[in-house]
Amino acid sequence: MRTLLLALLRPGLIAILVTAGAAAAQQPPAVDELMRGAPVSPDRRVTLQNFMQEPYSRWGFRHIRQLAPTAEIYAGPGPASPLESQPVDLDKLVFNVGEDRTLDLAAWMEESRTDSFLVLHRGRIVYERYLHGMQPHLPHQMFSATKSFVGTLVLLLAEEGAIDLQRTVASYLPELADSAFGSATVQQLLDMVTSVSFSEDYEDPAADIWQYGQIAWIGYDPAVPYTGPASMYDYLPTLTSRDAEHGRAFHYVTPNTDVLAWLLSRVTGQPLQQLIAERIWQPLGAERSGYLWLDRGSVPMAGGGLNITARDAARFGQMILQEGHYNQRQVLPSAVAQRILTPRNREVFNVLYQDEWYENIAYGYHDQWWSFNNAHRAVSAIGVHGQFIYLDKVADMVIVKQSAHPDAEGESNEVHGPLIWHQIALHLMELDSDQ
Amino acid sequence: MRTLLLALLRPGLIAILVTAGAAAAQQPPAVDELMRGAPVSPDRRVTLQNFMQEPYSRWGFRHIRQLAPTAEIYAGPGPASPLESQPVDLDKLVFNVGEDRTLDLAAWMEESRTDSFLVLHRGRIVYERYLHGMQPHLPHQMFSATKSFVGTLVLLLAEEGAIDLQRTVASYLPELADSAFGSATVQQLLDMVTSVSFSEDYEDPAADIWQYGQIAWIGYDPAVPYTGPASMYDYLPTLTSRDAEHGRAFHYVTPNTDVLAWLLSRVTGQPLQQLIAERIWQPLGAERSGYLWLDRGSVPMAGGGLNITARDAARFGQMILQEGHYNQRQVLPSAVAQRILTPRNREVFNVLYQDEWYENIAYGYHDQWWSFNNAHRAVSAIGVHGQFIYLDKVADMVIVKQSAHPDAEGESNEVHGPLIWHQIALHLMELDSDQ
Repeated sequence: MRTLLLALLRPGLIAILVTAGAAAAQQPPAVDELMRGAPVSPDRRVTLQNFMQEPYSRWGFRHIRQLAPTAEIYAGPGPASPLESQPVDLDKLVFNVGEDRTLDLAAWMEESRTDSFLVLHRGRIVYERYLHGMQPHLPHQMFSATKSFVGTLVLLLAEEGAIDLQRTVASYLPELADSAFGSATVQQLLDMVTSVSFSEDYEDPAADIWQYGQIAWIGYDPAVPYTGPASMYDYLPTLTSRDAEHGRAFHYVTPNTDVLAWLLSRVTGQPLQQLIAERIWQPLGAERSGYLWLDRGSVPMAGGGLNITARDAARFGQMILQEGHYNQRQVLPSAVAQRILTPRNREVFNVLYQDEWYENIAYGYHDQWWSFNNAHRAVSAIGVHGQFIYLDKVADMVIVKQSAHPDAEGESNEVHGPLIWHQIALHLMELDSDQ
Repeated sequence: MRTLLLALLRPGLIAILVTAGAAAAQQPPAVDELMRGAPVSPDRRVTLQNFMQEPYSRWGFRHIRQLAPTAEIYAGPGPASPLESQPVDLDKLVFNVGEDRTLDLAAWMEESRTDSFLVLHRGRIVYERYLHGMQPHLPHQMFSATKSFVGTLVLLLAEEGAIDLQRTVASYLPELADSAFGSATVQQLLDMVTSVSFSEDYEDPAADIWQYGQIAWIGYDPAVPYTGPASMYDYLPTLTSRDAEHGRAFHYVTPNTDVLAWLLSRVTGQPLQQLIAERIWQPLGAERSGYLWLDRGSVPMAGGGLNITARDAARFGQMILQEGHYNQRQVLPSAVAQRILTPRNREVFNVLYQDEWYENIAYGYHDQWWSFNNAHRAVSAIGVHGQFIYLDKVADMVIVKQSAHPDAEGESNEVHGPLIWHQIALHLMELDSDQ
């Protein structure tokens, strides 16, 4: 399976495993016991040191705002756009997930540590579940699914003429002229084909991703002075090139997205939370304000700090399926939506990553969106630990999944997930044709 | 004027003044320039070190969630309770504020560094202003006005029989048996007549209030290891008695409220944000979720960490004026509302505080509410730097004021404010009688 993929926000993991080792040997607390009590007993406490680890992640991923500073993505004063329900019984289906193994939804949702699972078909909710105490109104940490929102905004501003995708990063952000990003085009950042020396190898305590996460408070220990970069803007200029030209290979490097978000704010003069709020969230008629996790310098974590509800994620996905039209408005130009829904970059996808997942399950990565190698060529926002906004244009189906899987990536979410969703899509299409 | 009063959350102030001295000598940034830019230039940056100081406080007091971890006070999915508008022209009035000085509202709002100013009369908005970029949807830091919410919840639970106000703190919280609070009754905490050795003298770098604020991240410096109490629950048991008996004198000590909040959570098993949400905010039909600032150990800052909008503060006040009835529901038992509206404790008010303000402007303190020495005997929630929810039962008037005054307390807010509001009350009553 993927090894370099989905780099986001896992620094500190080794430290976490080490420090939590003793506690883990004892009976771990039940999910509904976490953070209960006054005071909360030490073994039930969720902190910036343990929130990436099970069971603490189950509470942590739905309460990021209680762990770190956050910026609201204001949904506006209006009523939410209506989201009708027309339940379809998917619980009796049995799905083939390869190697002669079958699963029903209940078993798969449990294996993949699901918090929220929601299926829209033709814009209506046909299936919606919240598990292990998750509630519909709670914004859930989306990790790298955040990137797809940033990519979408960049495409929007490009369509409006405010950003030229073929210009270099340095022409917008002179601060990055001498960094790995300076000579890359905006489009190369969008597609993650830049040449950046950045290691996301969690086994290596010296990996770059460790320092990256610390900028966003991850692993924070009050007794240890912090001497790292004051914010993402201090860190990004320090990243240097790999021995390769831009454009040659897909290389999943989270800071590419942080550069894109910086560029968005430079061009518009607005922070990312305001751009998402005014350009997407409010026109969409989102039900709940979302929020962005802020780093130590108050810079939004564009690579993975978005927190939103499952229903609002579904609205966002459906809007793209409807060519940008939603809530009786043209939220995005149809050209932007079409572009998101059109997979590209198969040819550079497997240069650095050669395994079963890259070969057979996934198809490519473009404009901060993944695509899948199935008959419907679905595209998806994906975040570690099981976050997905999966768009199947052929079946007119959106699937949102929010999870707290102990593994950043794994079979149940990244392999079984898309296999099951494609079968759900086929089933829904069949139901349609029966009517 | 008051010297010990309104202790809340000003530690670090001296350090702030010292460190900001150089910058202050230059031209300070305009309010609308704060936190703008990517990156934000150092002189425009609002941090945990400078957010209590002007001009940084103007941005800081409406963006606490961007500075520290916070817990949502969920307003619920429903529509907000209606808040009708019936504007009255108060701009032409001229108010007598003593010493032969008069002011109109515009001048007073400016002098007192107003962010929001809202007047309800008979439950309708007759006047509403947002200044210096403040917006109606932004929750504003309420500082010690938070205490009145805690007091109200304690009265509610006492009315329901879950808390006995005459029992000692130690009987609920054995952890506090050996502290100053152990032998005090719940009622004595409510009225702030406990004997606690706690200094809120900001001139003294060794004052207790410094350590208190650090627990809540105030003054946080990433380069300096933090070795203080891990949370409020670790700190409160360390406070010891003054040389006096409980009940003898009003002594404004913020940790009294933190103990009350601890007791609320011990008795109910619920965190403060959930209690405010389910017992007040949702039944009230609040327009916006509020939030509570969390300390380093994720404990809500019950002494001063509430952030709400002006309109929702007004709903809360009006509900109390209406004997607990609001939004077609009995939100609080009428006995609780009546008790809040009935000033007490004049006799112990001036034992430790003897000055003009305590003599003539204020009347007393009971159940975590202040009262004023005017003909209507108005009661009020009060927070430093100009936060008020002022209830005048006689005139059926609620006034909400949110501010970012550079002084924690001062003439324009604490003296001119109540003088002006009483004159507004008389004016509104006169308009009524004219009709």
